[in-house]
Amino acid sequence: MKAPIDFYFDFASPYAYFLADALDELARRHGRVVHWRPLMLWAVLKEHGMAPPLEHAVKRAYMLQDMDRSARHYGKAFRLPTSFPLSSHLPARVFYHLQAQDGALALRFARQVFSAYFTQEANIADATAIQDIGASCGVAREVIAAGLADGSAKETLRQVIAEAQARGVFGSPFVFIDGEAYFGADRLPQIEAALARAD
Amino acid sequence: MKAPIDFYFDFASPYAYFLADALDELARRHGRVVHWRPLMLWAVLKEHGMAPPLEHAVKRAYMLQDMDRSARHYGKAFRLPTSFPLSSHLPARVFYHLQAQDGALALRFARQVFSAYFTQEANIADATAIQDIGASCGVAREVIAAGLADGSAKETLRQVIAEAQARGVFGSPFVFIDGEAYFGADRLPQIEAALARAD
Repeated sequence: MKAPIDFYFDFASPYAYFLADALDELARRHGRVVHWRPLMLWAVLKEHGMAPPLEHAVKRAYMLQDMDRSARHYGKAFRLPTSFPLSSHLPARVFYHLQAQDGALALRFARQVFSAYFTQEANIADATAIQDIGASCGVAREVIAAGLADGSAKETLRQVIAEAQARGVFGSPFVFIDGEAYFGADRLPQIEAALARAD
Repeated sequence: MKAPIDFYFDFASPYAYFLADALDELARRHGRVVHWRPLMLWAVLKEHGMAPPLEHAVKRAYMLQDMDRSARHYGKAFRLPTSFPLSSHLPARVFYHLQAQDGALALRFARQVFSAYFTQEANIADATAIQDIGASCGVAREVIAAGLADGSAKETLRQVIAEAQARGVFGSPFVFIDGEAYFGADRLPQIEAALARAD
């Protein structure tokens, strides 16, 4: 039984969205499971004393262009959301709430969050928008509301953030395979090579 | 006649070393010329108020591992130099001094600087080491000494740094093709796609 792949990411990270499906597909081909670990990147960076990726104007200007180009490169529909960047604590909480009951459902919800945020202008910092996304996965609005208020999901999220800090995560997406770290959607070819070597 | 490719880089940047030959080869295949533009990344970042890439311990730890892995990925011999990081103003000055006389010689010197620094432990912040590198390209030690003291080469370097800042460079390697920016050796597949589209 091969070790699972740990996938730390922020729901508001375009590069995480670009990587997610490709990572799942690679894992499937190489007999691995991907553990999705949503977190708020700003919380991890704050602990490390690091600036958010879009803080510097010159880097921001580059990234806005690079995001569009990278979306085409990875074959993903993409429109930079009007509400960008934002804090992704709401979908992260709901994810851990759903995961405690049904892992497959939590993953469907997560994929729908990415798609709604990056292709349909959903404001994922808004509770009603999260309920709409839940509804499109067949989750009742009151289940989502319970997730948003779930202290245990909040605690899981806090633990994931602490764990990510301890493991040296400083960006999104940040992937661990057999103890080795890979930062960025652009590490996909190196991830593929690592999985093939370990087969 | 297609527009040249501008290649801004720091001689002390492993990722610039990983990209350089592949970029030249791609350019050749697509009928383009690469303009090598060495600079000191620290000088560019200082102007932008940005931190050097290795300032944060957590990022440094990741990059040290990523450099070794990326060297294998790009098929490049690589050993992290004992003298790393360092200021690369000496080889940059000599490059612009040689370029004013013989562009092809300047390129041979530049490739030799990368190779000596990243595979042979040459300390490229040391004038004697730069003279040794020059000698291995058939350049007399007094020509290198003249380059190190050349006020005009120093002025060219200052201008390249100012030009890079104005164009939004904030890392190494940083490539411009037909007005579009590509940051990092990992943008090689996107560079290749852009060159193919423009053919």
